[in-house]
Amino acid sequence: MRIVVDAMGGDNAPEVVIEGVELALTAEPALQVVLVGAKEATSHVAARYSEQITTIDTTEVIGMGESPTEAVRNKKDSSIVVGCKLVADGLADGFFSAGSTGAVMTAATLIVGRVKGIARPMIATLLPTITDGYVILGDIGANSDVKPEYLLQFARMGETYARLVRGVEQPRIGLLNIGEEESKGNEVTRQAYQLLSQELDSFVGNAEGNEILSGDFDVIITDGFTGNVVLKTIEGLTENLFKHFMQALAPALKDQAIAQVILPELAKLQKKLSAEEIGGAPLLGINGSCFIGHGSSTAKAIANGILATHSAAEVGLSTIISEAAK
Amino acid sequence: MRIVVDAMGGDNAPEVVIEGVELALTAEPALQVVLVGAKEATSHVAARYSEQITTIDTTEVIGMGESPTEAVRNKKDSSIVVGCKLVADGLADGFFSAGSTGAVMTAATLIVGRVKGIARPMIATLLPTITDGYVILGDIGANSDVKPEYLLQFARMGETYARLVRGVEQPRIGLLNIGEEESKGNEVTRQAYQLLSQELDSFVGNAEGNEILSGDFDVIITDGFTGNVVLKTIEGLTENLFKHFMQALAPALKDQAIAQVILPELAKLQKKLSAEEIGGAPLLGINGSCFIGHGSSTAKAIANGILATHSAAEVGLSTIISEAAK
Repeated sequence: MRIVVDAMGGDNAPEVVIEGVELALTAEPALQVVLVGAKEATSHVAARYSEQITTIDTTEVIGMGESPTEAVRNKKDSSIVVGCKLVADGLADGFFSAGSTGAVMTAATLIVGRVKGIARPMIATLLPTITDGYVILGDIGANSDVKPEYLLQFARMGETYARLVRGVEQPRIGLLNIGEEESKGNEVTRQAYQLLSQELDSFVGNAEGNEILSGDFDVIITDGFTGNVVLKTIEGLTENLFKHFMQALAPALKDQAIAQVILPELAKLQKKLSAEEIGGAPLLGINGSCFIGHGSSTAKAIANGILATHSAAEVGLSTIISEAAK
Repeated sequence: MRIVVDAMGGDNAPEVVIEGVELALTAEPALQVVLVGAKEATSHVAARYSEQITTIDTTEVIGMGESPTEAVRNKKDSSIVVGCKLVADGLADGFFSAGSTGAVMTAATLIVGRVKGIARPMIATLLPTITDGYVILGDIGANSDVKPEYLLQFARMGETYARLVRGVEQPRIGLLNIGEEESKGNEVTRQAYQLLSQELDSFVGNAEGNEILSGDFDVIITDGFTGNVVLKTIEGLTENLFKHFMQALAPALKDQAIAQVILPELAKLQKKLSAEEIGGAPLLGINGSCFIGHGSSTAKAIANGILATHSAAEVGLSTIISEAAK
C-alpha cells in the first residue's frame, strides 16, 4: 500500500513528521510512503529510504488558522491539496496529515470525494476507556448540524471501522444523549434513537456523558458540535487533573525514594491516557483512507497514524463503507 | 428568610437531608426552615430546633425514575409539589431539593412559575476551575433545544447570578462553542454569537471544551443538551481519573510513611474537585429562589445548597432577573 504523508502538517513539522515516517517504515516493511512537502524537508530522508519513500515537492503550506475553504481553493501547490489529489487520481491508497483538521476535511471531501450514498463524511477518534480498551467517538467536528439520517450513517460507518480496522467482532453502538430513556434528548437525538433502534442491530442505546469512557460502548455517535466540545473537554480535563495530581504529590516527590516508586507508575498512566498510541482520527465516508493527526503529535503518534491509514487502506475500508451505504 | 427543604429528596434521604438542615441552621442563625416530608422523618429534628424549623407533613414521594410531568400532576401530596406551592403562595422565600431534577424543574415552572419576560428557565451549576475559582455553567438540562434568544437570556441570568450571589463584580460571559472565531459552531451558536456581541457588554467570546475550567470565564452558556453531556463527562472523567491515580499509587501507598505524606494531599484535592462545597444548582428564571442538589449529596452539600438558596432569596435574585428581562 502506498500512503501519502503530509510532511508540512502539525505544530512540529516537518521534523517530527519525518521521524514518524521513519518509525512507521521500520514497523511496517510493506509500507510505501509518498512524502509531500518542501524539497529541503523531504530529500534527506528520501535518500536514506529510497526503496520505501518517493517524494513530491510542494511550495505552499496551509496554516492552522486559515479558512479551510479558501486555503484549499487558493493553495493549489500545498501539501494537503497535492496529497489529496494523489489519492483522487489513484496514485496512492491513503492520506495522512497532522495539519489543519478543517483543511484536510475540506480537501478530502472536495478532491478525494465522498463515498457514494454517504450524505456527510464524519471525523471519528479513538479514546482510551477505563477498561483499558478504546471507544470510537464521532462526529468530532465535521458536521455541526446533523439530521437523524446522518447519525444512522455515522453509526454504520463507525461500526464498519470498529470491525475492520479495530478488530471488534460485535461492536456495541451508543447514541450520545442526556438520559437512558428513548424519550430523552433533543429533537434530533429522539428521532435518531427510533431510527437506530429500527435499522441497526448493533445499537445498544443511549450513552450519557459519564458513560463515554466506561467501556460499555465500542462506538458512540453524536453531532459534530457536541462531539467536538466533549472531546476537547476530555482532553483539557485530563491534562488539568494530571497537573493537579502532580501538584498534590510534589511535597512527597521531593523524597527520592518515594519518587522512584511513584514516577514510573505515573508515567505509565500518562502514556495510557495520551493520544500518542492512537495516532490519528479517520475521516469516514471519504473515498479513500484518510486520517488526521493531532497538531501536537509526537513522532510515535505520527507513526501510529500512518500505520492506521495503511491498515484502513489494506482492508479497503471505504469500499466496504460504500457497500454498507447501499 | 424562610426556605422550604424537601426532606424526601436525594439518594440518602431523609437522614442526610435532616443532617444537612442541622448544619445549615447552625451556620446561619437567621435561617428559618420549612421541612416538608413524612412526619416520622421530620418530627424529631423539628422538636429539637423548634424555633427555626416548622414542618409540613406529606404522604407521597416522587422517585428519581418517574416521568416528571406525570409525577407532578398526579402526586399532589408529594414533598416537591407541596414545597413549591408554599413558595408560590408566598409562605416561603425559597425551595431546596436533592430529588429528581426533572420533577423539581417541572414543579417549579408549573407551580412557582416563570419570571415574567423569561422564555425558558435554565438550570445552572458551579464547577471548580483550575484557578481555584468557580465557573457557572448553564443550561445543564432544562432545554435540550434552544433558540439564540434563549441563550441571550441564559447569559443575562447567569451574569446576574454571578454578580449577586457569587459576588463576581464583572462577570466574563462565554458561549460554549467549537472554535474561537465567530464563524464557528452550529446554526444556533453562530446566531447567538452575533446577538451576544450586540447586546451584552460582558460577553467575551466563545469558550471551547478545554476552556470550560480554565478560569478565563465566570459564566459559560450553552443549550441544555450540550451542557448536560459536558457536565456528566466532567463528573465521570474526574471520578475515573481519580481511580486511575489511586491505582497507580497503590504500590507506593503500601508504605506507611509514604501514605502519611500523600493521602492528606489527595484528600484535599478530592475535596476541591467534589461538588460538596457547591451544594446546589440554581433554577434561574423561576419566580423564587429554587435550587436542586445532587442526588448523592452529602450532609455538607445539602447544607451548602440550603445556604445558597437562602442567599439567593435574601438578595432577591428572581426580582432582579425580572428587572433584567424587561
